[in-house]
Amino acid sequence: MRLPLYQRALRQLSADGIPTVSSAELADAAGVNAAKVRKDLSHLGTYGTPGTGYDVNFLLSQVRHELGLDREWTVVIVGMGNLGHALAHSERFSGQSFRAVALFDVDPDKIGEDVDGLQIRHVSELSAAGFEPSRAIGVIACPAEVAQDVCNRLVAAGIGAILNFAPAILTVAPPVLLRQVDFVVELQALAFYVVHPEAITGPEASQSEL
Amino acid sequence: MRLPLYQRALRQLSADGIPTVSSAELADAAGVNAAKVRKDLSHLGTYGTPGTGYDVNFLLSQVRHELGLDREWTVVIVGMGNLGHALAHSERFSGQSFRAVALFDVDPDKIGEDVDGLQIRHVSELSAAGFEPSRAIGVIACPAEVAQDVCNRLVAAGIGAILNFAPAILTVAPPVLLRQVDFVVELQALAFYVVHPEAITGPEASQSEL
Repeated sequence: MRLPLYQRALRQLSADGIPTVSSAELADAAGVNAAKVRKDLSHLGTYGTPGTGYDVNFLLSQVRHELGLDREWTVVIVGMGNLGHALAHSERFSGQSFRAVALFDVDPDKIGEDVDGLQIRHVSELSAAGFEPSRAIGVIACPAEVAQDVCNRLVAAGIGAILNFAPAILTVAPPVLLRQVDFVVELQALAFYVVHPEAITGPEASQSEL
Repeated sequence: MRLPLYQRALRQLSADGIPTVSSAELADAAGVNAAKVRKDLSHLGTYGTPGTGYDVNFLLSQVRHELGLDREWTVVIVGMGNLGHALAHSERFSGQSFRAVALFDVDPDKIGEDVDGLQIRHVSELSAAGFEPSRAIGVIACPAEVAQDVCNRLVAAGIGAILNFAPAILTVAPPVLLRQVDFVVELQALAFYVVHPEAITGPEASQSEL
């Protein structure tokens, strides 16, 4: 989970025309502690030059390769309410190797709506859409009650990796990958640390970043 | 991060009128492995009755207390685009101890708009709103470019815990707590596991749940 943070920080450094970065500077830019940065990068087989640091563009290309971002991923979103629209908004993905290619819903009022050049289609068309499993990520942004059904449809359409935003625990069979983001769980985690500040200890967490 | 999962599973069991649950059943419902459930619950000082399991409602009240959910948290959302609207939607928070109490934006077209009974206000009114630090969570759902400014305004308004959805690394001074959810980071994490299925090993992760 730290590689994406390095990637984001390195992209910014590269865009700013900065040629080299020390582990301390990268740590600061990524919001990760410096010892952890050095350890993570050594796992990539990368060692900075003493006194100069790491070559920003070379390190960026290494991190992007490791993250699988040297290919383009297609993103399929099911559920085009406010969240689906927020996710589909191209600004979020631009230049990040992810491209929304298909949007689905069941609401007749939404079918046919144009979102940044993509028309929202009925979810019944999902299975015929034909996605390549190793290149496509399905995103579930529909209500919890229908999330498992949508998940099954994504799997049936050949999608091998799913990001679920619905507040429901879903089941998939290996080798399909499933990852969940639940807003209420994030709020609860934050509430936990407000109530238990003593739990914010050790090298894994600083006082201000959880 | 597992306590919220137990809480969600136990709420469902309680709503279904189920009086007791074994650690294996709870593990299944929460999507966590059974040995981990037993260990976590023993940290709460809770031991199930052999042959019967855990009392669902008692365990739920223990988990909710541990998560700080036996108080009500007020949620302040800044940035009322699609994401802000999705987050403000009361269904997500209902019965979860979180209540959106104030919504802010800078767009003149949005100021005054009614969202589930709350009027969107201009962000300049934030500092005068007066929130209790130990009860309020700020949510940043604005564009990345203005996220640090919004963060500073939330802190100035007395808010001690912030959930940031903007794709920007923010800085706060202790004891303010900051937690980030970045959609692109979540997609990248999923892409990483598609490219590196060998990284999905050990007791921490199963093949299908990351």
